[in-house]
Amino acid sequence: MKQDIGVIGLAVMGENLALNIESRGYNVSVYNRSADKTTKFMEGRAAGKQFHGALSIADFCESLSVPRKIILMVKAGEAVDKTIEALLPHLTANDIVIDGGNSNYEDTERRLTTLAEHHILFVGSGISGGELGALHGPSMMPGGAHAAWPHIKPIFEAITAKVGNNQEPCCTWVGNGGAGHFVKMVHNGIEYGDMQVICEGYDVAKRLLQLDNKTIAKAFADWNEQRLQSYLMEITAAILRYEENGQSVLDVILDTAGQKGTGKWTSINALNESIPLNLITESVFSRFISAQKELRTLLHQNYPQPAVNKAINCQLHDIEGAMYASKLISYAQGFELIATKSTDKQWGINLAAIAKIWRGGCIIRSTFLDNIAAAYEHETIDTLLASNFYKHVLPEAIASLRNVVAAAALNGIPVPAMSAALAYYDAMRTDQLPANLLQAQRDYFGAHTYERTDKPRGEFFHTNWTGEGGDTISTTYNN
Amino acid sequence: MKQDIGVIGLAVMGENLALNIESRGYNVSVYNRSADKTTKFMEGRAAGKQFHGALSIADFCESLSVPRKIILMVKAGEAVDKTIEALLPHLTANDIVIDGGNSNYEDTERRLTTLAEHHILFVGSGISGGELGALHGPSMMPGGAHAAWPHIKPIFEAITAKVGNNQEPCCTWVGNGGAGHFVKMVHNGIEYGDMQVICEGYDVAKRLLQLDNKTIAKAFADWNEQRLQSYLMEITAAILRYEENGQSVLDVILDTAGQKGTGKWTSINALNESIPLNLITESVFSRFISAQKELRTLLHQNYPQPAVNKAINCQLHDIEGAMYASKLISYAQGFELIATKSTDKQWGINLAAIAKIWRGGCIIRSTFLDNIAAAYEHETIDTLLASNFYKHVLPEAIASLRNVVAAAALNGIPVPAMSAALAYYDAMRTDQLPANLLQAQRDYFGAHTYERTDKPRGEFFHTNWTGEGGDTISTTYNN
Repeated sequence: MKQDIGVIGLAVMGENLALNIESRGYNVSVYNRSADKTTKFMEGRAAGKQFHGALSIADFCESLSVPRKIILMVKAGEAVDKTIEALLPHLTANDIVIDGGNSNYEDTERRLTTLAEHHILFVGSGISGGELGALHGPSMMPGGAHAAWPHIKPIFEAITAKVGNNQEPCCTWVGNGGAGHFVKMVHNGIEYGDMQVICEGYDVAKRLLQLDNKTIAKAFADWNEQRLQSYLMEITAAILRYEENGQSVLDVILDTAGQKGTGKWTSINALNESIPLNLITESVFSRFISAQKELRTLLHQNYPQPAVNKAINCQLHDIEGAMYASKLISYAQGFELIATKSTDKQWGINLAAIAKIWRGGCIIRSTFLDNIAAAYEHETIDTLLASNFYKHVLPEAIASLRNVVAAAALNGIPVPAMSAALAYYDAMRTDQLPANLLQAQRDYFGAHTYERTDKPRGEFFHTNWTGEGGDTISTTYNN
Repeated sequence: MKQDIGVIGLAVMGENLALNIESRGYNVSVYNRSADKTTKFMEGRAAGKQFHGALSIADFCESLSVPRKIILMVKAGEAVDKTIEALLPHLTANDIVIDGGNSNYEDTERRLTTLAEHHILFVGSGISGGELGALHGPSMMPGGAHAAWPHIKPIFEAITAKVGNNQEPCCTWVGNGGAGHFVKMVHNGIEYGDMQVICEGYDVAKRLLQLDNKTIAKAFADWNEQRLQSYLMEITAAILRYEENGQSVLDVILDTAGQKGTGKWTSINALNESIPLNLITESVFSRFISAQKELRTLLHQNYPQPAVNKAINCQLHDIEGAMYASKLISYAQGFELIATKSTDKQWGINLAAIAKIWRGGCIIRSTFLDNIAAAYEHETIDTLLASNFYKHVLPEAIASLRNVVAAAALNGIPVPAMSAALAYYDAMRTDQLPANLLQAQRDYFGAHTYERTDKPRGEFFHTNWTGEGGDTISTTYNN
């Protein structure tokens, strides 16, 4: 009997996803480049289950029913190309290859084109949820060759997380091209932002309010019952409480964070799409700074902590408001990026559907996403800031954010993401920014011209500010 | 008689650069794709001077002494490739082609390789100074085929700005490959940052301190006599004073700023090099926000200005300190990016030399760059924050920055660049960041492992936080 589906790559995510699929009643072939991993898996966690452990690519492909459905759970980058290359001789037309890793969507678009030439249906599918999500039900974001969808939909819907009274699966067909991996990339960027915002909340609670881990854990657990309810708040409370031999593990973890590319890619895409995605970008930069541990230790000696400044009455509830406001801002930015890219690439992404599939399974799952889904479902808006939901909840949370940012600034506690959120909010609601001066400067030194508030848009003016420089306008050479 | 050098492209920068070269005693051929521009130039600003106006590429190349020295002053991108393509049939071995536009350094490296195959020496040269700099003496940042340097050095040194008692030319051979355009790109990024910081200073003076243009102009002019002395401060004071028919021109300029790519590229390079370049990046994002004028006008109605909050005593001198501190931070970030990239690409860039050639001619010229040059000349440092100069001046300026950021946060005035500077400073001098929590979260949901403060670096630990998920470590698949 042929197997229903195959999984290549038996690192933690691959193993768990394979176990998840098998648990839903499917027969699964597994293959790993190093055969000992396959053997170990077959003798261990897969023992007694409906698995076929293939020790060669040929056997793996041979074992699958056609059209073959193969999920790659290998490291993004070269390994994906190499695996596809190894698979190709063993595939037949209309087979389906799904890349479940965190591939760059541009690579996905390239592979889609290449595999289409071989009549293979390629799907780039974001899978979020970490190791436990993969095991119990992730959020899945497939995109690419749409003809593959009817074949994989039943399996995808079976293995994903379910949310709400109707048990809606956290999976939707995102769109064509690299849409699936692009949306997963932005998901990860948002995840970077959420994590950074939580870290800043923790830091302000710890260093400004001088609270201990248990007290902070209780606050986070309480907030997790309210509007900040989310998986990341839940695990943060658990982490803050976690002890080994009576000692907090958190307190001995080194403060140097890694990053694997998707956060950075999100920022780069925002820069290329002219989207002011400053919160996620500050989160990426914060990871870079955290990695500069030796330099920080050196500079710590040169630049002392400022004296305690109590000019601002910042309280615990302000931290909650600041985190909530920051989150609102970050999601507005992230969704604006998806919307803009989708329009550019004609992916046709349904923003409400994306918000919905993020409500369960994935790392950023939260009740908050219900509100975002509703906003995109019922309103026509260019930004979430213009939604009724935001208009209703944001101003009060922003008041807390102002307190936290101001108090942190005075007391030497870095809150880059929260500061970015506040600056973005204040800039976006300011109808008269100081960019008039910036345009004057550009016209002064580069003859770039400017528009005027007392003239129609599209009419450009140049002032000969110095009486020098000629009247040649900078149309083709730009500084 | 053959001409000494040729300039292609007669937009404002090309015209002015050609006039500058001619004024130093060189004969110059000029060519422009649309011949009428050439004719207009020859009959106008070039009349009676040592110019040859070529109406064809063939005539242009024919008119030049060999090895030909040709400066392209055309729009970065496709136009450069097309011009090179048009030139090639008319060139001979060892001719020198200089791209004086704001090309992406990666394009420069590609062109360098292509032209080397044709035995043409290619130079990618940043040229800064805007239209007046081009005319009177820019700062020039050539890099690429080093064999070209002896041939062009006399002309470059003749036309550049001179600074100091020894009249040092603002020009140095930056390095091989795309080093020249890379350094110019970072220069432009720093320029974005400087401009944004000045705009924020102006905005805080105007909206928080409620000062009028003339009063702000006087403050900026005063500060321009002190440690903030710079071309951008000087022109800002002039702009703030400038009136037409008794009306401030600044007050009627539309607050939507353009951007042409180099600022964005600087940020993208920083992201790819893991450099936390947050101030310039916020400056780029601020331009994006300024361009969203309609959306801002809409949101302005939904989100009102907060009530005036005087909890922080922010004074005019604090604005000066905040601008100075922000500038110190921004340059530390920019130079770190150049240093890191130079190491990666083995360009061998001399950071002190770069600081020196920016002291005159270019848009970011300032006395401040003397201090940076001195720091890199006399100290071995990984960041300017570790220099004696920074250690001496930064803490006092930071105190003002804290006041401005806090007061702006409370009063609804966006100061994204200043906030970024402060958050960066506080993060870089913090030996215990909340990234320990971030690492715990990553280990919790993705088995990413962490290092411990009580164990040697390089030893990685995983906690089975939930008692689930298995003990498989995420080594190859990363979330």
